[in-house]
Amino acid sequence: MRLRSIFARNLRLARHRSGLSQFELAQMAGLDRNYVGKLEREESSPTVDTIEALAIALDYDPERFLTFFE
Amino acid sequence: MRLRSIFARNLRLARHRSGLSQFELAQMAGLDRNYVGKLEREESSPTVDTIEALAIALDYDPERFLTFFE
Repeated sequence: MRLRSIFARNLRLARHRSGLSQFELAQMAGLDRNYVGKLEREESSPTVDTIEALAIALDYDPERFLTFFE
Repeated sequence: MRLRSIFARNLRLARHRSGLSQFELAQMAGLDRNYVGKLEREESSPTVDTIEALAIALDYDPERFLTFFE
C-alpha cells in the first residue's frame, strides 16, 4: 500500500474520530479549505510541516499518520 | 522539538547507519543530489512521497522518520 494511501486513510480516521468536518480541520490547521479533501482523496502529498499542523489540530501523534494499521 | 527537526535527525541517523553518503542516498531515492543535505539541515520540508522514496532506499519504516526518540 502506498504511503500516500496510508496517510489518507489515517487522516480520515483521525478526523472522523475528532468529529471535525474537512473544512473545520483545514481551518484549524491553517490550510486551504479544500486541501484536507484533496489529501483524503490522495490527490496531494503533504509535507512534514503540513503533517505537523494536522497532528496539532487533531491532537494526534504525527508518526501515526504514516503507520500501516492492519 | 519541531517535526522538521525530528525528521532531519532521524534521516541523518538512518543514513549514517546505512553507510551511504548524502549524494548516494539522493541518487538511490531519485532525488536531486543536494536535496538530502537540505533535508538534514532542515532547509526543506519533505512530502510523503519523498519520505516513501527515502524509506525504500534505506529499508526503513517511514513512520520512524517522524518518531521522537529520546
